[in-house]
Amino acid sequence: MASYATAPVVQTGQSAHARLKPVGVREVKLTEGLLAERYRTNIAAGIPAGWRQLWESHTVPNFYVVSGRRPGKVEGPRYIDSDGYKWLEGACWAYAHTQDNTLKAWIDEFVDVIAASQEEDGYVNTHFAGDRQSLRFTDLNHAHEIYCFGHLAQAAIAHHRVTGEEKLLHVARRFADLLYRLFGPEGRWGACGHPEAEMALVELYRETGDGRYLQLAARMIDARGRKPPVLDGSIYLLDHLPFREQREAVGHAVRALYLYAGAADLYMETGESALKESLDALWQDVFYRKVYVTGGLGARYEGEAFGLPYELPNLRAYAETCAAIAGFMWNWRMLQIEPTACYADWMETALYNSILSGVSLDGTRYFYMNPLESRGGYERSPWFGCACCPPNIHRTLAALPGYLYSLSDSTVYVHFYASNVLHTRLPNGHSVRLQVKTEYPWSGDIEIYPSAGRYRIALRIPGWVPYADLRVNGVRVEVLPGSYAVIEEQWQGDDVIELSLRMPVELVKANPRIEEDRHSAAVRRGPVVYCIEQVDSPDISLLDLYLPDPALDLERKQEPSLLGGVVTVKGTALVDTVQREGQPLYVPAAHYTPPQHKAIQVRWIPYYAWANRGAGAMKVWLPLA
Amino acid sequence: MASYATAPVVQTGQSAHARLKPVGVREVKLTEGLLAERYRTNIAAGIPAGWRQLWESHTVPNFYVVSGRRPGKVEGPRYIDSDGYKWLEGACWAYAHTQDNTLKAWIDEFVDVIAASQEEDGYVNTHFAGDRQSLRFTDLNHAHEIYCFGHLAQAAIAHHRVTGEEKLLHVARRFADLLYRLFGPEGRWGACGHPEAEMALVELYRETGDGRYLQLAARMIDARGRKPPVLDGSIYLLDHLPFREQREAVGHAVRALYLYAGAADLYMETGESALKESLDALWQDVFYRKVYVTGGLGARYEGEAFGLPYELPNLRAYAETCAAIAGFMWNWRMLQIEPTACYADWMETALYNSILSGVSLDGTRYFYMNPLESRGGYERSPWFGCACCPPNIHRTLAALPGYLYSLSDSTVYVHFYASNVLHTRLPNGHSVRLQVKTEYPWSGDIEIYPSAGRYRIALRIPGWVPYADLRVNGVRVEVLPGSYAVIEEQWQGDDVIELSLRMPVELVKANPRIEEDRHSAAVRRGPVVYCIEQVDSPDISLLDLYLPDPALDLERKQEPSLLGGVVTVKGTALVDTVQREGQPLYVPAAHYTPPQHKAIQVRWIPYYAWANRGAGAMKVWLPLA
Repeated sequence: MASYATAPVVQTGQSAHARLKPVGVREVKLTEGLLAERYRTNIAAGIPAGWRQLWESHTVPNFYVVSGRRPGKVEGPRYIDSDGYKWLEGACWAYAHTQDNTLKAWIDEFVDVIAASQEEDGYVNTHFAGDRQSLRFTDLNHAHEIYCFGHLAQAAIAHHRVTGEEKLLHVARRFADLLYRLFGPEGRWGACGHPEAEMALVELYRETGDGRYLQLAARMIDARGRKPPVLDGSIYLLDHLPFREQREAVGHAVRALYLYAGAADLYMETGESALKESLDALWQDVFYRKVYVTGGLGARYEGEAFGLPYELPNLRAYAETCAAIAGFMWNWRMLQIEPTACYADWMETALYNSILSGVSLDGTRYFYMNPLESRGGYERSPWFGCACCPPNIHRTLAALPGYLYSLSDSTVYVHFYASNVLHTRLPNGHSVRLQVKTEYPWSGDIEIYPSAGRYRIALRIPGWVPYADLRVNGVRVEVLPGSYAVIEEQWQGDDVIELSLRMPVELVKANPRIEEDRHSAAVRRGPVVYCIEQVDSPDISLLDLYLPDPALDLERKQEPSLLGGVVTVKGTALVDTVQREGQPLYVPAAHYTPPQHKAIQVRWIPYYAWANRGAGAMKVWLPLA
Repeated sequence: MASYATAPVVQTGQSAHARLKPVGVREVKLTEGLLAERYRTNIAAGIPAGWRQLWESHTVPNFYVVSGRRPGKVEGPRYIDSDGYKWLEGACWAYAHTQDNTLKAWIDEFVDVIAASQEEDGYVNTHFAGDRQSLRFTDLNHAHEIYCFGHLAQAAIAHHRVTGEEKLLHVARRFADLLYRLFGPEGRWGACGHPEAEMALVELYRETGDGRYLQLAARMIDARGRKPPVLDGSIYLLDHLPFREQREAVGHAVRALYLYAGAADLYMETGESALKESLDALWQDVFYRKVYVTGGLGARYEGEAFGLPYELPNLRAYAETCAAIAGFMWNWRMLQIEPTACYADWMETALYNSILSGVSLDGTRYFYMNPLESRGGYERSPWFGCACCPPNIHRTLAALPGYLYSLSDSTVYVHFYASNVLHTRLPNGHSVRLQVKTEYPWSGDIEIYPSAGRYRIALRIPGWVPYADLRVNGVRVEVLPGSYAVIEEQWQGDDVIELSLRMPVELVKANPRIEEDRHSAAVRRGPVVYCIEQVDSPDISLLDLYLPDPALDLERKQEPSLLGGVVTVKGTALVDTVQREGQPLYVPAAHYTPPQHKAIQVRWIPYYAWANRGAGAMKVWLPLA
């Protein structure tokens, strides 16, 4: 297994029911290309700006107040501590690579004041200090105390893995011990209205070997859906059914997806088939009925919730950045259980679209919602009153290197393609170095240079690819899209693996049960979903824009100076020239004037890059003429 | 002008800038047909069940507690009194016709305990009594105190007009006097976060002749959008701009529409052109960009708000029953200002679809939201925690007779067609009796028998009618759809006017800027919009249902034993037989399997009657094949 010093994000090294074992964040160096650029911008701009926002938003000052180091009063929502913890987790993953002294000073300062805020009994939460101490654990439904603990524990684990220091891990363990006394097998039934701690507790077990944390995670999952209710029996809180009876993704999307991720973590340790049956059914429900083409999850504003099957509005898509990240975390765990390409396919879709869209190109402004259409006026913000999304971006992008690969006994699994160098040790003890060179996702051509030795390399062939050509030293290997192509060789140290994923500009159509996308198409190339932005078509209303069917002449164009360097798509679209404004909304079919189309040239840009040139209108799906 | 004893709903008899004058609720007797049936069911079942609900929901008991007549504590939301007042208004309009002793006893009891709950200074609100007295008028944004006053005043006016009794009117005046001292020209700027009192105050001025109430209404309209803000400057509260600068319908739909109705009332008294300019612009915005084919208003769940132009989702249509009623009230006022048929057209659409849909056929269960699509599981409730809609139905249906006609100096305007008898006196003093016989809306044939005398009859020719034939004693009169056809005669007492409105079963198409309705059609016949219900097509998913284009064979069918007696539509629809469940949501266009259609016979029922045979799926719009 990978040593702790390599800093894996999810340590499945000893998990009996995880086929795959992690590489560490430290073991992968992103060298160039889109992911490397987004990764570096997050570290260079996002995380520093986040530290400033944590001060301005009272997140860090609250700890100073509660620790008695500074006067003042605690401000902000009940879950505000979690924003700081998520940022801290991201800062630690970033520090794994940068070893930057300034960043380390911020980490040290924050860790120090968190530790100083811990009560004798292990409790830490700035909101429930002082006058509000008596309210502790009186509102598990909504108070987010255990949720905040979960993020504290995840930060502590990252801190321990990256720095080797015990201080924050000790804080998290003491809090976990308190929770174990209160809500463990000898305590009362209890779980947080906002799941998250389940994942964290399993990881804390992995980090410390203390089986009580695994027991507590299991008990929190068991607590849901009990009658009389532990929470309030509501769908919103995922308390409508025992987890093992849940088969449909409902309720608050981020809560649901964190719960599923936690249950997957638990399954990796216990192998309990009832957990896996629920996870499989929920996965089918989400990814065959409730996901946007961008990978966005959670259709509804109301309750930040999953919609009904096929309920996927574009203009009013909620698609919270945190939900895409939570789905990314859940799929990662499913992938470690069993290396099935569909999990990685979806993670890639989410990453290149719904997650990257969550942050501005300069790395310092964030979307909370990620709609697939805008009429203008919607743009990213530097922070939020409910600031869950920005630091979730920080930690996810900072941990990206740890998500590119997994290992099994003698196999390196390559999940995602980006120019990078991997140095790792296989579970069988063999050292491996892979160098990957590619301009992915702008090009589907990937070269891999493996170090010498006998081991297998499993390359993900994305499900979206119409054709893939794989050659080892020029010799062709058969591959199947939507699976891992496994190459076993006695590598000589001078071999080259060439994978060419064909990336035509494609029109995508939706299952016609999605009413909002019916008779419409979206443009996709490789994993990247495209959109039309008003700024590129200033003279028309995007509401009047159609696509010819079949599309005429969609062509890719490299635009190195646009939006940080992207491949755009150009082609013919059709504008309805009939005057629609000021016309009756409903007319008898006999009096209906069908669209009269004029061809115009339009430019599509990658969806993730929208709203970086002003807050104009935007559309992913265009109706077919 | 009509005398007070005739009990008009909106007394524009002396309003300088209202072209039309009212008839009284007492002057029209609905005799038979759909409206008469819905009117009678409301009185026989809805209002009595409402009285029981007012007891069970604490609405009436709260007054007993506050008046000191019974022990207990006040319960329910801050606006709960208004539910009682709206019911009371409805009960008074009902009593105008029934003269029923039991109903009068309920009215008397309620009026008595309301009066006993009034404070010395005129204040009445059960929520802000006792311990909460100090909170009075400290949260105009959200406390609904002035809103509750408005409903009290409307109930008091109805009570006075119908019973001639002064008791409740005296209560309302004393409260209004308090508000005048606090928020009138000598007081501070103030208005309620939820408009409603504006209408009520203008009507209180009309009822009492006391100009202070008109001043106060004006001042509350002037208060909105002031800087520094009187409310909180939010769109939700319609405080984002001064009313006279508002041109787009935004924010909470019911609040907005009540505000517009109040401004229209004010305009009728003052004739201020700036008010009319805003009203006209807002009307254009709502009825050309933000209304459902059913007349439903307010697209969004989030904030119960108007959506953007053309944002009209079907499954997640909010379309609150109260918003349709508020729109009905606003359009009534616009119609009294100037008898333009478009106002009445829209009122009729709302009445036969979004308002009647708000109540079950048995009269005792209510919709809050009126979606244009359901996947099943949505049904009417006997009451709500926020119970604004049920008593709004009570008062609107109970006042229906007062909405059928208006008068000008020597003209009777016939806005809506139903079998009824009108006895009234024209403003010029001439007595008129009209008898109307029709099976409207199931038939477009209408016969009108006018009493002798020289006066004009103006018949609304609906905008939706493809062809109308009007004959006076068999002699044809030219008419124009979407206008009033005015007939001036020396009536002999044995004349007959025959109006025949052609009512084909029509497919309606939407402005293609409404993305959710694009490439789709709805079935309409006359003013009645139709829908498909799962119960009539049990073997298919409505998500797989399409319409041939052009439609093949839509035929009406009288079904006297179905849903209280309706005209249904039968015809051919197409079912997509491709397996869609469990298939990928998004595929390249080249791999897309278009629908494969099998023709089936389906039945459409009137939209208002849906969910009376179980809570199955329902659709108004079907995609075209």
